Amino acid sequence: MILDKVNNTLDLKKLTKEELKGLSSEIKDILIKKVSKTGGHFAPNLGVVELTIAMHYVFNSPVDKIVYDVSHQCYTHKILTGRKHGFLDENKYSEISGYTTQHESEHDFFIVGHTSTSISLACGLCEARDIKKEKSNIIAFIGDGSLSGGLAYEGLNNASEYGKNLIIVVNDNDMSIGETSGGLYKNLKKLRETKGNCEDNFFKALGLDYVYVDDGHDIENLIEVFSKVKDIDHPIVVHVKTIKGNGYKYAEDHKEDFHYVMPFDLETKKSLCPQSKENYISITNDYLIQKSKENENIVGITAGTPALFDTFRKVRKEKFIDVGIAEEHAITLSSAMASQGIKPVVALGSSFIQRSYDQLSHDLALNNNPAVILIFRSGISSIDATHIGVFDIPMISNIPNIVYLCPTTKNEYLKMLDFAINQNERPIVIRVPSDVVEDSIDKEYDFTLNTFEKIEKGKDVAILGLGSFFGLAKEVCEKLKEDNINSTLINPRFVSGIDESMLEDVSKNHKVVVTLEDGVIDGGFGEKISRFYSDKNIKVLNYGAKKEFTDRVSIDELYNRYRLKSDLIIDDIKRNL
Amino acid sequence: MILDKVNNTLDLKKLTKEELKGLSSEIKDILIKKVSKTGGHFAPNLGVVELTIAMHYVFNSPVDKIVYDVSHQCYTHKILTGRKHGFLDENKYSEISGYTTQHESEHDFFIVGHTSTSISLACGLCEARDIKKEKSNIIAFIGDGSLSGGLAYEGLNNASEYGKNLIIVVNDNDMSIGETSGGLYKNLKKLRETKGNCEDNFFKALGLDYVYVDDGHDIENLIEVFSKVKDIDHPIVVHVKTIKGNGYKYAEDHKEDFHYVMPFDLETKKSLCPQSKENYISITNDYLIQKSKENENIVGITAGTPALFDTFRKVRKEKFIDVGIAEEHAITLSSAMASQGIKPVVALGSSFIQRSYDQLSHDLALNNNPAVILIFRSGISSIDATHIGVFDIPMISNIPNIVYLCPTTKNEYLKMLDFAINQNERPIVIRVPSDVVEDSIDKEYDFTLNTFEKIEKGKDVAILGLGSFFGLAKEVCEKLKEDNINSTLINPRFVSGIDESMLEDVSKNHKVVVTLEDGVIDGGFGEKISRFYSDKNIKVLNYGAKKEFTDRVSIDELYNRYRLKSDLIIDDIKRNL
Repeated sequence: MILDKVNNTLDLKKLTKEELKGLSSEIKDILIKKVSKTGGHFAPNLGVVELTIAMHYVFNSPVDKIVYDVSHQCYTHKILTGRKHGFLDENKYSEISGYTTQHESEHDFFIVGHTSTSISLACGLCEARDIKKEKSNIIAFIGDGSLSGGLAYEGLNNASEYGKNLIIVVNDNDMSIGETSGGLYKNLKKLRETKGNCEDNFFKALGLDYVYVDDGHDIENLIEVFSKVKDIDHPIVVHVKTIKGNGYKYAEDHKEDFHYVMPFDLETKKSLCPQSKENYISITNDYLIQKSKENENIVGITAGTPALFDTFRKVRKEKFIDVGIAEEHAITLSSAMASQGIKPVVALGSSFIQRSYDQLSHDLALNNNPAVILIFRSGISSIDATHIGVFDIPMISNIPNIVYLCPTTKNEYLKMLDFAINQNERPIVIRVPSDVVEDSIDKEYDFTLNTFEKIEKGKDVAILGLGSFFGLAKEVCEKLKEDNINSTLINPRFVSGIDESMLEDVSKNHKVVVTLEDGVIDGGFGEKISRFYSDKNIKVLNYGAKKEFTDRVSIDELYNRYRLKSDLIIDDIKRNL
Repeated sequence: MILDKVNNTLDLKKLTKEELKGLSSEIKDILIKKVSKTGGHFAPNLGVVELTIAMHYVFNSPVDKIVYDVSHQCYTHKILTGRKHGFLDENKYSEISGYTTQHESEHDFFIVGHTSTSISLACGLCEARDIKKEKSNIIAFIGDGSLSGGLAYEGLNNASEYGKNLIIVVNDNDMSIGETSGGLYKNLKKLRETKGNCEDNFFKALGLDYVYVDDGHDIENLIEVFSKVKDIDHPIVVHVKTIKGNGYKYAEDHKEDFHYVMPFDLETKKSLCPQSKENYISITNDYLIQKSKENENIVGITAGTPALFDTFRKVRKEKFIDVGIAEEHAITLSSAMASQGIKPVVALGSSFIQRSYDQLSHDLALNNNPAVILIFRSGISSIDATHIGVFDIPMISNIPNIVYLCPTTKNEYLKMLDFAINQNERPIVIRVPSDVVEDSIDKEYDFTLNTFEKIEKGKDVAILGLGSFFGLAKEVCEKLKEDNINSTLINPRFVSGIDESMLEDVSKNHKVVVTLEDGVIDGGFGEKISRFYSDKNIKVLNYGAKKEFTDRVSIDELYNRYRLKSDLIIDDIKRNL
């Protein structure tokens, strides 16, 4: 294997052009094998193998610095910068992160997992280089999909004012996670069609120098282009056309499905970890399809993750908007729609809703418009630090006017959706659980503002299990019975406000109140309960995540660390009784 | 007066072209007189008198809907839509908000005070109109300064995909609050110079139709242009050149100073409420000018509010960056600079730092880069709802890794600045107080992480006065002495972490702990103290703002509402002792 000779980027520079081509084939095969087994970003990585090789052939990393946007396309970069074992050795697959991180290599400069940041980060590296009077090339490597995010534009706009070396490589594969959306993409299309020569070039309009590369898989040509722009004395955009999924025809033909994959069989193309038939995405879509038959005003909105409205967008195409990676626009748009009696339902991941705090606060909450927002992928998990979903409760629930709901079961979720869509008083956010829990009993729901639901009435100990941690609360409650402690079990439902009357009532014959929330405790739900009881003779124990960024730590380890296990909680309760 | 005949927009349509011109002169005189007396946005409003008259002459508000970006240029709009009394009658000056608000008139659609939102809001109104099968013109009215914000770009990019009526009026006065910054402004300049005919038109590059108007003060021509685009069947940008401050020469010549004014004398041009010689902006600038002589790595960064680094930017021009209204870029840029050993000091207002939550979390905190961020204009105040600064504590202090400091005196602030700049461990945010408090004694400072400072040692009652509320805490402490209660007085200093050892110590001989913070209680500092003591036999009383948007409510009323008065607090303490 040619890769045997390449342990670092210096080795790469010794290869012949033919060997470089061979190397790119080898790397594609390695990526296909590895990612099909472990899951990960498939098509984005296959599309940039030649580009990455050419960059590392021409530039001198880490003196020259490449900043990968989102960094979900950094696998080849990792293979070439001393981390190939993580892609070759099955036993070491898990050692290497799927994103760049400075803790892994001197060739990585930032932990990155959100889009649209690379140009601003590169601008910062440029400023630092100049102040330190150093000499190097700074390269921002950004996909066309990431260019729809406002920060990428703010970066481009500011980069243009900057008078020294900065190279912005636009990896244009004509795709975001899903299809791209927006005027910029019409421009990129024209630029591709005219080989960079169309009128009204977006990048030139922003005052940036520009060069177009029509074949992002032609290593020799890429090397030539990068050699020309190397050491350039001003900012330039190198616009490169690539094919997402290149090297694996099936991925080229199914770009959205192969953006990120779970482990799959290379022969049959079938997933090796099939999703349970029913999950909260399917439940939500089924509900919205049905509901939108009765209510013409429902519009589904996503921001670059249309898969969250998977079937809804197919069945109700005219009532679906994907704004591209533009979470800010999604929220502000929905606020305005809601102000006119329309019922937008926005679906966002927990780690991405944080890209629209000002829009939630200033555009939506202050204007008190009744949009509905669904937060997916929240809670303590073993995911990468860039994608953990434990911060949405403090972020959202402390904004006035917004009602933040945490359902515990499928039926309660559906009833909350109904409640949110049928009301016109205020913005409502629903924290969609991860695991589908069926209701044991059929019952009525009343969502009077800030009323908790008492599920079991006991004394001495009251347990408030918020959303997905209601199950844990129930488990604690059941186990306490074995010790002859009949505790009170409460489903708070509302995380943005508290049921003062019920809490007051609880204080009469309870000694210990336990709160459980599937997110960071700081600034969250439990602290509000602690505050409520802070001048009363009742002890409160708050459980949830510690205020920390966790990176691929197993759930079991985290639950132990945070004492989120029924036996540990019961120990604490007994100590405090 | 011609204005006597104009009580609403229908009256306006009856005027002759000559009368419209006369009306615009009258309105300018009214604005000059009114704003010089009350303070407010001066130059932005003077610049758009003719434009606003022309829009309301052509379009039929409120069926046709104009969305004003930031809305600090809406005074003429208000005069024409039934609210002229608030500009003519000195006794009614305070009745009308300085921003648009749907609670004031059916001609306003949103409460707006942050920039860059109008295009997304207009897109939402368009979608709603289409779903409801209505017919109307939707107009986004946005200044060139606001176009640097990422959300404006996300809006433009999405607007371009939209196939129906949408009119985006770009009011180009070649200014942001300060000078504009970025590649876009080179393009706007070229467009102005070529009367809209230069190569690489930014708006056309985004796929938008475009028309240029060279004289934004020529009402007749403006009426002609708007009449042509009225009822257009697709999105179009109407790019209008205006003169900021038009009608008051001195403002035209001093655009930045006259963007927003405090009451001033029209003859002498001098402020009628001169600032105290020393304030935290001058203290910060003096410090940074001095410090940057010793440390070449210090860079001052602002996002559209360069006045925060007023003198620093003049003296240390090469070490100052204003990124324009682009708070996201400011934070991400500073994170990258800090990663390379540079020491960026970013100055932002409390209500604007919330435009960069994801950048604070993902780009800065997760990467743990030692940038320094100064938050100005925080705390409970009588300001407009869009600008209240009470949410930064829950927003920032619950993000891991960030250390959030609250100084209580001038000297402590300077020592915290020193500490923040001299360390390289982590991002540090400092909440700059509003009132300058001199230290009564000279002393040493030790900022060991999460250590509070015990100022007076007492028993039974401990009072934690955070930042600008330390003075109130001291007052409570002094008054309690009159009742022979010697309380413990604590300056917490750190809002992002607690001093467990000191709190543990306090719990030994105290019955009541009081927390005072100049911000919303929910998710804030006091709740963390409540949580700490929640399983101990000690009562905690949390004081701060209620979770609500307050709009121009007097501080006195708010302090009463929140019981933030020493006598009220003492009553509560006594009740709990």
